Amino acid sequence: MKGYGVVKTGQPGWLDKEKPVPGPLDAIVRPTVLAPCSSDTHTMHGGAGPRENLILGHEAVGEVTEVGGLVRKFKPGDKVVVPCVTPDWTGRYIQEGKYNAHDHGMMGSFKFLTAKDGTFAEFFHVNMADANLVSLPNDISPEAALMTVDMMSTGFHAVELAEVGYGETVVVTGIGPVGLMAVAGSRLKGAGRIIVVGTRPNCVKIAKEYGATDVVSYKDGDIVERIKSLAGGSVDKVIIAGGNAATLTQAVSMVKPTGIVASVNYYDAADTFTIPAFMWGLGMANIDIRGGFCPGGAVRIEKLLNIIKYERVDPAKLITHRFDGFEKIEDAFMLMDKKPADLIKPAVFITW
Amino acid sequence: MKGYGVVKTGQPGWLDKEKPVPGPLDAIVRPTVLAPCSSDTHTMHGGAGPRENLILGHEAVGEVTEVGGLVRKFKPGDKVVVPCVTPDWTGRYIQEGKYNAHDHGMMGSFKFLTAKDGTFAEFFHVNMADANLVSLPNDISPEAALMTVDMMSTGFHAVELAEVGYGETVVVTGIGPVGLMAVAGSRLKGAGRIIVVGTRPNCVKIAKEYGATDVVSYKDGDIVERIKSLAGGSVDKVIIAGGNAATLTQAVSMVKPTGIVASVNYYDAADTFTIPAFMWGLGMANIDIRGGFCPGGAVRIEKLLNIIKYERVDPAKLITHRFDGFEKIEDAFMLMDKKPADLIKPAVFITW
Amino acid sequence: MKGYGVVKTGQPGWLDKEKPVPGPLDAIVRPTVLAPCSSDTHTMHGGAGPRENLILGHEAVGEVTEVGGLVRKFKPGDKVVVPCVTPDWTGRYIQEGKYNAHDHGMMGSFKFLTAKDGTFAEFFHVNMADANLVSLPNDISPEAALMTVDMMSTGFHAVELAEVGYGETVVVTGIGPVGLMAVAGSRLKGAGRIIVVGTRPNCVKIAKEYGATDVVSYKDGDIVERIKSLAGGSVDKVIIAGGNAATLTQAVSMVKPTGIVASVNYYDAADTFTIPAFMWGLGMANIDIRGGFCPGGAVRIEKLLNIIKYERVDPAKLITHRFDGFEKIEDAFMLMDKKPADLIKPAVFITW
Amino acid sequence: MKGYGVVKTGQPGWLDKEKPVPGPLDAIVRPTVLAPCSSDTHTMHGGAGPRENLILGHEAVGEVTEVGGLVRKFKPGDKVVVPCVTPDWTGRYIQEGKYNAHDHGMMGSFKFLTAKDGTFAEFFHVNMADANLVSLPNDISPEAALMTVDMMSTGFHAVELAEVGYGETVVVTGIGPVGLMAVAGSRLKGAGRIIVVGTRPNCVKIAKEYGATDVVSYKDGDIVERIKSLAGGSVDKVIIAGGNAATLTQAVSMVKPTGIVASVNYYDAADTFTIPAFMWGLGMANIDIRGGFCPGGAVRIEKLLNIIKYERVDPAKLITHRFDGFEKIEDAFMLMDKKPADLIKPAVFITW
Repeated sequence: MKGYGVVKTGQPGWLDKEKPVPGPLDAIVRPTVLAPCSSDTHTMHGGAGPRENLILGHEAVGEVTEVGGLVRKFKPGDKVVVPCVTPDWTGRYIQEGKYNAHDHGMMGSFKFLTAKDGTFAEFFHVNMADANLVSLPNDISPEAALMTVDMMSTGFHAVELAEVGYGETVVVTGIGPVGLMAVAGSRLKGAGRIIVVGTRPNCVKIAKEYGATDVVSYKDGDIVERIKSLAGGSVDKVIIAGGNAATLTQAVSMVKPTGIVASVNYYDAADTFTIPAFMWGLGMANIDIRGGFCPGGAVRIEKLLNIIKYERVDPAKLITHRFDGFEKIEDAFMLMDKKPADLIKPAVFITW
Repeated sequence: MKGYGVVKTGQPGWLDKEKPVPGPLDAIVRPTVLAPCSSDTHTMHGGAGPRENLILGHEAVGEVTEVGGLVRKFKPGDKVVVPCVTPDWTGRYIQEGKYNAHDHGMMGSFKFLTAKDGTFAEFFHVNMADANLVSLPNDISPEAALMTVDMMSTGFHAVELAEVGYGETVVVTGIGPVGLMAVAGSRLKGAGRIIVVGTRPNCVKIAKEYGATDVVSYKDGDIVERIKSLAGGSVDKVIIAGGNAATLTQAVSMVKPTGIVASVNYYDAADTFTIPAFMWGLGMANIDIRGGFCPGGAVRIEKLLNIIKYERVDPAKLITHRFDGFEKIEDAFMLMDKKPADLIKPAVFITW
Repeated sequence: MKGYGVVKTGQPGWLDKEKPVPGPLDAIVRPTVLAPCSSDTHTMHGGAGPRENLILGHEAVGEVTEVGGLVRKFKPGDKVVVPCVTPDWTGRYIQEGKYNAHDHGMMGSFKFLTAKDGTFAEFFHVNMADANLVSLPNDISPEAALMTVDMMSTGFHAVELAEVGYGETVVVTGIGPVGLMAVAGSRLKGAGRIIVVGTRPNCVKIAKEYGATDVVSYKDGDIVERIKSLAGGSVDKVIIAGGNAATLTQAVSMVKPTGIVASVNYYDAADTFTIPAFMWGLGMANIDIRGGFCPGGAVRIEKLLNIIKYERVDPAKLITHRFDGFEKIEDAFMLMDKKPADLIKPAVFITW
Repeated sequence: MKGYGVVKTGQPGWLDKEKPVPGPLDAIVRPTVLAPCSSDTHTMHGGAGPRENLILGHEAVGEVTEVGGLVRKFKPGDKVVVPCVTPDWTGRYIQEGKYNAHDHGMMGSFKFLTAKDGTFAEFFHVNMADANLVSLPNDISPEAALMTVDMMSTGFHAVELAEVGYGETVVVTGIGPVGLMAVAGSRLKGAGRIIVVGTRPNCVKIAKEYGATDVVSYKDGDIVERIKSLAGGSVDKVIIAGGNAATLTQAVSMVKPTGIVASVNYYDAADTFTIPAFMWGLGMANIDIRGGFCPGGAVRIEKLLNIIKYERVDPAKLITHRFDGFEKIEDAFMLMDKKPADLIKPAVFITW
C-alpha cells in the first residue's frame, strides 16, 4: 500500500507499507478528503523527535473498507468523518471524565503519527470504530466536515479552557486555521470584543468574518501594550493558538487578575517558558495557565457537525487551496510546509 | 412626586408619593426610557401577594439627579443604565460567589417592587450606586441598553444555568421577550439545534432571527412527543421561559439523562410542581432541575452591553411598541396587561 | 449453575441457570464476598416492574475464573473488586464526560439485575473487564473493599452532587448504609455541621462516628422545623439517602437560596414528587435539585480503595451481620428483606 | 498611638502614628491576639519593594472600639475575628463571583500592609465592617480563631484550587503553617495519599497528625524522582506552599496529564519561573497551573470557624510559641524573622 510521510527525519516522500489490519473493535478506512496540518510538517522536520518510515496525516473523511468482528455501527461502504483523536475509551484519564485526549497517558488518545501510520495512505486504521467514527451527514459537505476533526475541535477547546463568558474581551494570538476557529468559537460562547494578533491579509479577513473586532500586528510594536491600550487595561481571557514560548509570557502579562490563559499551541520540545513572577502577581493573582489538546471521539465530532448543520459557523472557509487526486497529497503537503502568505488550509479530494 | 403602580391589588393607577432620598451610598435617578414587564402586571394582580400604594417598574435607563455622600463614580446629570437587580454586595449569599440575586436572602437583591417603589416614577432610588449603576455608552441606543437590565440578563441566565455547550440541542419553552433572549443566548453559547415552543407569529419571526431552528406549537398536540420526534429522542437541555407548573414536568420528561432543565419562569405562589418519579429516572437520572433569578449589578450589565456594542445580538428588536411621554406609562402598562398578539415588549421614552 | 434471585415477582428462591460465557472483552468471576442490598429486595418485590428467573446481587468481591480473548489486565485466579456499575465506556453519555452511570442510556451502565443476571451466583459475568475490574489490594480487607462498590460510591456521589464545601451545614436524610457513607463523605469534603435524620440506634451510633453532629428523628415532629431551628435557618445542602417522594419536598423547603438538594434515593416507579412553587422560590431561588446514580468503573473504585488504605474512613463498620457459605445467601437476603432494627448491612463470605 | 512595623526597609521597630479613624462603613479594632506571619517579615525586608513608617501585622482577633455611622452589626466591645483579606465587596472582580481577593485589582482586597497600617497596633482599621468582621464564637478559643484568618484560609484555598477529589494522591511542598493547613485541608477534601515535602521535625509531626502519609526531604536527593517512585508515577495534584520558583517547575514535572498544580506561595518579585515545554506536554497536557491568594470576608471565616467548632481540624496546633503583652509583639516578630527549627507559628496575647 502507498502512503505519504517521513522517509527519514527532514525527508518527506512516498512510502510502501503493509495494508493495516483491523483488530476486532477497529475499522479500516480509505480517505476521500484529506488535509495536511502544520503538525504533520512539524513532525517531518523532527519537531517531536526523529521519525522514519512513517505515514503522516491525521485529518480525514473517508469510506470504511473493512471492520473488525465486534464493530456494530459501521460496515464497508459507509462514509465517515474521522476524529484526529481516537481515544481508547477505557483509559484511566478518560474514566476521570475531564478530558479525553490522554486515555492511558499524555496525549495517548492521539494515535495517528505516534502509535501508528497516519491518514495519507490508501488505507488507514481507526481504533474503537463504534466510539470514534461518525457517519458523514448527507447535508454537510465532506470538506466542512473535515474541518471539524482537528481545526474546529482544537480551536473550540481553547475557548472551553478559557471559559469564555458573555461579553468578555478575549485575545486570540495566532490566526492560522486553529486560531480562526478559536475566534469563531469565542463568538459562539458570547465574547464581546475579540482582539486577534496576526498579519496575513487572508487570515485577517476571515478572522473578521468569524467575529474578530480588532486586529493587532506583531509588526507594529509591543503587542501587550497595544492590546492593553485598546482594551483600556487587562483583558478577560487570552487564547494562544500560535506563537512561541514568549507568547505565553505576553499572555500572562495582559490577562486580568482571576483571568485565564488558554493555550492549544504545539510548542517545540526545545522551548522553555520563562515567566517573571511579578507578571503573575507573585504567584497570587488567581490567573490560571492552561494548555490542552484537541478532544476527540464520535460524540464530540457529532456536536461540531451540528454547529455546521445549523449554520452557526462555516469552517469550510478555512480551505484556501484544493487538490484533486491521491498523488496530490505531496503537493498539498509541500505547500503546507512552505506556508505561502495566502494559505490557510489545503485539502486533497480523492476519488477511488 | 408622581408615579404609576398599584393603588390596591388589582387596581393600577397613578400615585402621589414622597420623592425618594438617597442614603450615603445611593443615587436618585430620573427615568428617560422605561419598559413595563409582565412581572409588573403580575404584581398588580396580586401574583406575589396583596400590594397597595406601590409604584411599579424595574426596567429603566435614566439620568442621575442626586447622589449620596459616599458615591464616587456618578454625579447628577450622568446618563445611566439601571440593572433591575441591585444587590447589597455585602450579603452572605453573594460572598459565597455563586449567584448575586439573593444578597441577604431569597431574591433579596431585587429591591424594586419589593423593598421599595419601582422605576415608573419621576424619580427612583438606586442602592449602592457605584456598584449597581452603569454609564450609558455613547455608542449604544438607550432602548437597546434598556433590554439588558432584565430581559437579556434573565434570558441569558437561563442559558448559563443550562450550561449550553457546543452543538447541543436546546429547547426553549416560551418565546416572550425572556424566551427570545434565551434563544439568542443559546446560539451565543454554541447551541446547534434550538427548538422553541410558541405560537405568536411576531415572536416566532424574531425567534428565528435569533437562532431558533424549529418551532413547535402548543396547538398541534403533545409538545413532548413532537419535540422528541423532531430530535430523534431526548434533548440536551430544556430552558423554561414561560408556561406553568406543568411545563417543568414536560421539560423533565424530554431532557436526556445527565441533562439540565433550567427555568427562569416566575411561577405563581399557588402553583405546585408534580413530577412522576419514573420521568426523573426514579431519582437517579442525573438530570438537574434548576430555577434561577436575573443576575444584576454593574459588571453584569456592562458585559451585556458589550454583546450589543460588538453586534453579537440586537435586543432592541424586542421592542414592538413605543410610547412618548411620562404619562404614557399608563398606556404601555395597560398594553402589557392585555398582551395583544403582536406585542413583545413596549417601551416608554421620556423627555424632561 | 446455581444462583439466588427472583423466581417470579415477589418470590425469591434458588435458580438453575447456564454458566455465563465471556465475550472477548469480558470476564467471568466467582464471588468470595457478597452483600445483598435493598435494591435487590426492592427488585424482587417488583419495585422496578415484574421480573422472573433473574439472579439478584450486584455487590461482590471475587476471583476471576475466565477471561475473553481481548482482556489484558486480568487472568483466572486474580482476586478482584467488582464495581456494581460497569459501563460500556464507549457510550455517548460517557463520552460527554459528566457521569458514567448512563453509558448508552439512562442507568445503562448498571448491568446486573437489568441486562443480565447478578452476582448471587456460582459465576457471574463482567463486561469490559480491563476497565471495570480492580485488583483487590493486599492491604485492604475484602469486606471493606466490598463496601466501596455501591455503598461508598453512591453515598459519596451524593456529596459530590451536593458540592459540599468547607464548613457547610449539611443535612443527610436516611442513615442506612448509603446515608452513613454520605455522612462520612460529607465530613471528607469539609462539612462543618452534619445533621442526620434517622432513628435506629445502631445507625445513629455509626453516624456519629462518621461525623454526624446532630440527630433528628422522624418521631419527634416535623423535621423541617426541627432542622431549621437547630441550624438557625436554612441549611447549605441537603442529601437524600432514604425516605420517599415527600422527603424531596422537605429538602427543598429547608435548603438555602443558592443551595443544592442532592438525592441518591431509589424512588418507586409509582411515586410522584409534589413541590409547592413557593417552597422553591416561585422557581427563582437558584436552588438546584439533583438526583444521581452510583458512578462505577475501575478508576472510581481504585480511588475509593485509597480512602480505606489511607485510613480516611472505614466502611467495614457498616457490616453488622456476617454469613458463611454460598447457601447462606438466602439467609442474608431474607434478613435484608426484613430489615431488623439492628441491621445495617449483611455480608456473605464464600470459600470455594 | 503605638505600633510595630517597618521604620525603613530592613529595619523593624516601634512607630508612633495617628489613631485610625473609621469611615461610615468601617470599624476600629483593638487586638487581643495577634500572630506575625512570614509575609510581615518578608515585607520588612523589602520583598514587596521599599517600605517605611508602616505598621505590620494582618492576623488578629480583637475587640471593636469604634464603628462608623452605617455599621449595623457591630458595636464597641464586640469581640471579633478579623479576616486578613477584607474586600471592598463592590469591586468588579468580586462581582464576577470567582475569587474575592482582588476586589478592584490584583490582591486589592488585601488592605493591611499595602493600603494602610496593619494589626500590630493599639488600634487598627477594618473596612466594610459588617461584611468583613466575624463575632468570635463563645465556644472557639481566640487562638484557634486567629489561625483561620490567613493560615487556614490560604492553605484551604490551595486545596480548592487543586480541586482535590476523593482518594486522590496529593503532594504538598512546604510544611510551614500554610502547608500544614493545606495538608489538613486535603484530608478534608477526601485525599487518599498525602505526600509532604519538608524536614523540620516539629512540622513533620504535625503534618502526620493532619493527615500526611509520606514525608520526603529535600536533603535526600531529587524530590521529583522520590515522589514519582513512591507514587508509582505522576500524582493527581501538587500544592505549593513553600519553596521558590524552581518548585513550580518540579510540580509541573510530577503531576499527571489532566492534573493541577496549585500554588499559594508568595514568590519574590525578582523570581522568574522557567518551565521546559516538554515537562508541560509541549503545552498540550491539560495540566493547569494555578496560583491564588487567601480568600477573605466574614462568610469565609465563619465557615472556617465551623470547621473548628465541629472538630474537623484543630489549627491551634500550629501555635508553638506564645507571648503575653502588647510589647512582646517585637519578640514574636523577631522570632518569626529568625525562624528557629522548632517554630511553626507564634502568637501574642494582649490584655488591655
